[in-house]
This record gives sequence, structure tokens and C-alpha cells, in this order.
Amino acid sequence: MEIKKINVVKIGGNVIDDPEGLERFLKIFSEIEGPKILVHGGGKEATRLSAAMSIETKMIDGRRVTDRQTLDIVTMVYAGLINKRIVSLLQRLGCNALGMSGADGNLIPARRRSPSPIDYGHVGDIDPHKVNKDLLRVLLEGGITPVVCAICHDTEGNLLNCNADSVAAALAIAASSLGRTVLTYCFEKAGVLADIDDETSVIPLVTPSNFTRLKEEGVIAKGMIPKIANALDSAGKGVAEVRICKAEAAGSDAGTLIIAGE
Amino acid sequence: MEIKKINVVKIGGNVIDDPEGLERFLKIFSEIEGPKILVHGGGKEATRLSAAMSIETKMIDGRRVTDRQTLDIVTMVYAGLINKRIVSLLQRLGCNALGMSGADGNLIPARRRSPSPIDYGHVGDIDPHKVNKDLLRVLLEGGITPVVCAICHDTEGNLLNCNADSVAAALAIAASSLGRTVLTYCFEKAGVLADIDDETSVIPLVTPSNFTRLKEEGVIAKGMIPKIANALDSAGKGVAEVRICKAEAAGSDAGTLIIAGE
Repeated sequence: MEIKKINVVKIGGNVIDDPEGLERFLKIFSEIEGPKILVHGGGKEATRLSAAMSIETKMIDGRRVTDRQTLDIVTMVYAGLINKRIVSLLQRLGCNALGMSGADGNLIPARRRSPSPIDYGHVGDIDPHKVNKDLLRVLLEGGITPVVCAICHDTEGNLLNCNADSVAAALAIAASSLGRTVLTYCFEKAGVLADIDDETSVIPLVTPSNFTRLKEEGVIAKGMIPKIANALDSAGKGVAEVRICKAEAAGSDAGTLIIAGE
Repeated sequence: MEIKKINVVKIGGNVIDDPEGLERFLKIFSEIEGPKILVHGGGKEATRLSAAMSIETKMIDGRRVTDRQTLDIVTMVYAGLINKRIVSLLQRLGCNALGMSGADGNLIPARRRSPSPIDYGHVGDIDPHKVNKDLLRVLLEGGITPVVCAICHDTEGNLLNCNADSVAAALAIAASSLGRTVLTYCFEKAGVLADIDDETSVIPLVTPSNFTRLKEEGVIAKGMIPKIANALDSAGKGVAEVRICKAEAAGSDAGTLIIAGE
């Protein structure tokens, strides 16, 4: 079977932490036609569970430092609680979801990040070329929708806490070899905004050349710069379209489109 | 592809709670040839997590009463922590494990148990005929080893805490339509013992007729009676062999063999 188009959609805490918003999003996601993959982050649930167990949450530059206890917590919350909640809701909506971590079926091998200059603990980085494309193909051709959390493994028996944006990018790059792939990052805003306070000021298209100009003009700044740089990187590695939009717009043409061409 | 023989092995808390014993068992399990499925219970980890969160664990007749909070805890522990720990260890051993709950790919639909006479909360019962055999076939033919926890779903968006012995029996009964299936319950003893204090007194064979006699003579009593009745039930529903043995003997001919014939 030839796969024509594959959608990879990533949702983060802003969707996961709002039960009604999550149900609304999952309804929209379930209606996206064709093969699709959902990647989810963790939201505040892991921090809540840590607090309930009196374990301190330590963040450096917005990334969770993952000691042994914290690895257990994120494995429970991401791969267990959130993943199975999403799977059961999608099943109700008639979407044949199958929840996975990157360890399952060796979907996403990762490498533990070097402890210097900063030791993040059990945290891993992903090489998109190592994603198990054969498994992706079998699942997508079988009408199965993988629901993937960002817990991966080093193939030596150790789980690793990875970045969900990177998991989505790696899966989209791998999926590109199976069919035309669209990667959507769901975001709290309607897209990349020219004016941060104006939701109607969505920049419809970012390419490598206007990205340079928009950065120089200070229109795209701070946290958006690495996000768009990563999107352009995925586009350069075969992903046909990367989109940044609100969760409700997943699968549509709304938001900011990021492509590798001019 | 025709599947010749399928092994379904169930482990419980006595194996899961002992890290070295678990690794020893997984090494043996990974070496079992041909298609195989591992089903695991939860052990004491869920009770420990409940205690750490100051949530009371309530048991009736040895079964966990599963209120909303407890459902979250068992989902985290069974489908997250224990499942992914086992998967990553099997991956290291070269066994292509893929962790699942019964909600994933709609593998095991279940029905919430009636609240009367005893309300166990979010607890489900399984009809073996509803197991998703097509998914089992795709996975087993693909060289994938499903690692299944006992969290199932009602197909209406609700997760249900089920009995791991029943999950193993349902999967084995379903697998029987794909190939000759052997179901092994790993146990703390070497098998069904004629003398509970003598590990060498393993009863090698139980059939419906000698089961009746062994019960009358009081050799098989108490907790073993429902265990063997369930094993005989599975055997009567197509499972070629049911075996009760130590975890280290999984895949071998040791322990007690339970078959439906004379």
C-alpha cells in the first residue's frame, strides 16, 4: 500500500492540562483523514505528582532535570496516565489509537545526553535516522494511529526522558520516507504572530529567507527563534510542511506554515 | 505466515517486585522461541505509590477497590512504570517487546463490573471472544512481542482495572485461533504441590477428572481451586496447554500441566 499523506501532530501541556480542550482537540484530531501520529508532552501532571510525593522538581533553562525518581514519575505520568487517557478517548471516537513510548517496538532509540556542561540526568537526544520506520509503516498501513509520549530508551535497558518537540520532529522526518508528511505543532497562539498581542497578526509563511529578515527586524524573537529553527530543520530533512497553530486548527491550513523552499 | 506455536506467559508481583528475579526471568523469557506474549500484574508498586500519596489502599477478597484516584495510580504504575521497565529490559535482550494496555489498538475491550453485590469501582471483566485477534496476528507475525498490563477499556473512553490472570487467559484463548497456544502462569512454587511444604511434590498433570478427585481428597484446596478451575476453563476454550510453574521454568516442561482432555 502506498501512503499518500501522513499527519504528525504534537500537543503540549496547554492542551493536556485542560480536560475539555483535550476532548475538543481529540475530536478534531480523530477526524483528520489518512495515516496520522499524535505526539504528546506531559503538562503539569508530572510536577503535581512530584509535589504529592514530596519530590522537588528541578528545571534548568525550562528543561526538567531527571534523576532516578523523576524518571519513574515522568514514565508513570507520560507513558501511563496521559498516554492511556488519550488512547481510550480516541478509541471512543473511532480512532484506532495505540499508545507507545520510544522504547516500545524500539520505535525511537535515543542517546543519554552528556553530563557536561549541565547534567540533566536520565535525559536523551534523538537521531531521526534511527527511528524504526518499518514499525511505523506496519502500524500506519494497518490503520493504527500511534500515540507517542517522549519517553525513549538507549537500547541498553535504560529509559530516557526526551523532548516531545524533538520526538515529533524525528517521527515526521522518518515518516517522510513513507509519504508526504505534515508536522503540526499545536500552540497556545494562533500561529507565529507579527504582534504578540494581536491574535489576528499571524505570519502565514516562514521560509529560510524571510526567517532571517524577520529575526533581523525583531519580529521573531526569544523563544520563537529555536522553535522556528527546529521547524526549518525538519523541513530541510524531508518534512513537506511544518505548521504552528492552535490545537483546534490541527489538520487545517490555519496558522503559520514553515517550509524549506524560498 | 502460519504461526505454529504461541507462548503466553503471565508473571505477578513475586517476580516484578524482585529486580534480580525479574531480570533473570526476562532473560529466560527472551530466549523462548517463536511468537510470544508477556502479561504482567502490578505487584506492590501501586500500593507503595498510594502510600506515598497518602491514598488508602482498600482490598476486598484480595481484589483492589479501584476508585478514580486508584485507577490513575494503577494506570501509572502498571501501564507506565512496570510496563516500560519490562519493555526496555527485553529490548536490551534482543526481544522486540511492545508494551500495551488493553485499550491500545482496542486489544482487550472489557465491561465494567456491576456495582452489586460489591462495588469494586473502575474494575472490568473480559470476554475472551472480544480480544482483537487481527491486531495480535499483525504483531506476532511482525516478530513483535506484546507486553500487556491489565488495564483495559470499555470502548467508551473509560479505563478499567482488570485481573491479570484473566487478561492472560483471554489473550491465550484468542491466540489459540492463530496457532497452538501454551499459557504459563508463573508462580512462587514449583507447580501445584501434593504437599504444600514439599517443593518436590509437584503434581505433574491435572485433568478435569483427576481435579475432581484431588479436590475430594483435599490435596488441592483453598486458593488453588479457582486457579486450576480457570486454567481448565482456558484449556476447554482452545488453549492447548496451561502450565503452572516457577518463573525460571517458563517455556520448559516443568511444573504442573493442566489440559482439558482425560
